[in-house]
Amino acid sequence: MTAEQRVTDLVAEIEPVDDGAAQAARRRHQTLLKPPGSLGRLEQLGAQLAAIAGRCPPPVPGEPAVVVAAGDHGVHARGVTPWPQQITAAMVEQFCAGRAAANVLAHVAGARVSVLDVGVAHPVPDHPRLRRARVRDGTADLSAGPAMTREEAARAVLAGAGIVDELVAAGADLLVTGDMGIANTTPSACLAAAFTGVSAAMITGRGAGVDDDTFGIKVTVVGEALTRHQPDPGDPLGVLAAVGGLEHAALAGLILAGAAERLPVILDGVVSNTAALVAAAICPAVGGYLVGGHRSTEPAAVASLDHLGLDTLLDLQLRLGEGTGALLAVPLVIAAAQVLSDMAELDDLGLSG
Amino acid sequence: MTAEQRVTDLVAEIEPVDDGAAQAARRRHQTLLKPPGSLGRLEQLGAQLAAIAGRCPPPVPGEPAVVVAAGDHGVHARGVTPWPQQITAAMVEQFCAGRAAANVLAHVAGARVSVLDVGVAHPVPDHPRLRRARVRDGTADLSAGPAMTREEAARAVLAGAGIVDELVAAGADLLVTGDMGIANTTPSACLAAAFTGVSAAMITGRGAGVDDDTFGIKVTVVGEALTRHQPDPGDPLGVLAAVGGLEHAALAGLILAGAAERLPVILDGVVSNTAALVAAAICPAVGGYLVGGHRSTEPAAVASLDHLGLDTLLDLQLRLGEGTGALLAVPLVIAAAQVLSDMAELDDLGLSG
Repeated sequence: MTAEQRVTDLVAEIEPVDDGAAQAARRRHQTLLKPPGSLGRLEQLGAQLAAIAGRCPPPVPGEPAVVVAAGDHGVHARGVTPWPQQITAAMVEQFCAGRAAANVLAHVAGARVSVLDVGVAHPVPDHPRLRRARVRDGTADLSAGPAMTREEAARAVLAGAGIVDELVAAGADLLVTGDMGIANTTPSACLAAAFTGVSAAMITGRGAGVDDDTFGIKVTVVGEALTRHQPDPGDPLGVLAAVGGLEHAALAGLILAGAAERLPVILDGVVSNTAALVAAAICPAVGGYLVGGHRSTEPAAVASLDHLGLDTLLDLQLRLGEGTGALLAVPLVIAAAQVLSDMAELDDLGLSG
Repeated sequence: MTAEQRVTDLVAEIEPVDDGAAQAARRRHQTLLKPPGSLGRLEQLGAQLAAIAGRCPPPVPGEPAVVVAAGDHGVHARGVTPWPQQITAAMVEQFCAGRAAANVLAHVAGARVSVLDVGVAHPVPDHPRLRRARVRDGTADLSAGPAMTREEAARAVLAGAGIVDELVAAGADLLVTGDMGIANTTPSACLAAAFTGVSAAMITGRGAGVDDDTFGIKVTVVGEALTRHQPDPGDPLGVLAAVGGLEHAALAGLILAGAAERLPVILDGVVSNTAALVAAAICPAVGGYLVGGHRSTEPAAVASLDHLGLDTLLDLQLRLGEGTGALLAVPLVIAAAQVLSDMAELDDLGLSG
């Protein structure tokens, strides 16, 4: 069986979220000890968690797990970022050592950290936190040809799905997307353009911070890639292979597998948002499982969230990736579920009328 | 010594936050393992926490404490809310029993809950979580005369300060404001109007939810109160006595005492925001200790935050009070401090240049 066929099989396992459970959560919120609607966005989130779990009250997540999917990008050679490519591998070591921003924020959120090497260009040493699923040593230059083959893209999707199986077996009940890959905001911009139709000039951002000259190169490269590949949003795996990244593919797989497991998936920034575009294009039903963690400053993130119809829980002007913004949103997701389980009801006040 | 003199003594203990420590935090953020500035608002918050503690890295809060200050309001008789006044006392019992929204969110945040009866109109039973410091059984109708005497306002301020002493002695290192008081968005609107100059029509909101008729009464009542008292923002205790609430006074005292203890104070919604206006008018240096937890939907909250120059960490359309929005922000404050303590540095990557 090809990897692409296995992706199709995974998609067949995904059920839509349960609107009846969401309705039950909304009704329950009308009875809880507060003015109806007064918990605002938290009430909507609670209804979504009920829909995802298929019951009300939804289970309170106790084992959040962030996956930092790491990959490199051939387009790095075009000069789209000032950072050397070696940083991706070096950061993988830091995630394993536990001292990157994502580790610190995972600690605060009570989340376990897994690192998935799905396509780093340089060697990385073994570590208990590291999952080796390297499909290739970084993508090819997407401005000169396809970033990867269709089969490679599918294998990277399966790598992301595979780590979900492992995490769920270990008890994970809330998934958090994270990414690491120097230059990965360039394929993110290409993916967002392909699925939303926004132009290269409007969709390209400054990533973690680039100067005007580098930004100009980036816009040019994204435009060239779109012109060359003419990506067809009706063929999401084809789009992924042409202009995506291996970590985008892995996160799309994580999202698909998370939905198949009926777990909420909190999205981090632009890499996660564009991976979600791919996943939702493959299987629209995954949309119900997605929680917008934070609003990245990247235009491709904003366009992707709009396209997915997602708002975000946080808007803290982050532009780091790694899962940092999504990890900061974990307590809000826990709170939304806990409220539906633990609050008293208006009737408990013992006042008539 | 009068209560007002004791407030003056408390204010004398307050030092401005330490800009040098904030600078050190900003410098440290430039060296941490991430692109400079990429943690956005979290970096500014970290610098503020350093300024508050007077050292970098700032201590990571481990013992958050929320105080739910409860009081009633004579203006309730004017029909500014559909909820019966007895709910205030009934909710105090629920906070003690541990099943209100604030309790659930405090549990998620790891915060202890204290309830301060600073002016509830009806009897409340003893409970270990309850602190009795009732200054009077609810305020008088602020539309017909002063809500309380100047000395009563000062005593309520001291009640809020007193609970800080107790909490700090027990280890609290992060303060969270909460409130309970049926009709308390009406004095909130009056306080906001007095300090910001915004008109009654523009500053009055729908609180936890009132219909058009009740809203009309509320705007009229706020306008009458402002016309009657002509509150002078240069005399904050006078403003508080004329048009405030006992829980507003207590939270102003909590803020002043928190600043004197050099602790961060996370503000909840409109009652807390307007209490902060009072505290900042009494002692402008407290501004440096305030963290905007969430952006309430009340116009008086937005005007107060603007006047204080505070943004908020969260904007989740909450309109409940109790400390709920501020409690949701607790993990963000912890995260901002933890990042400055625990993250590796760029130099740890071992890459040159």
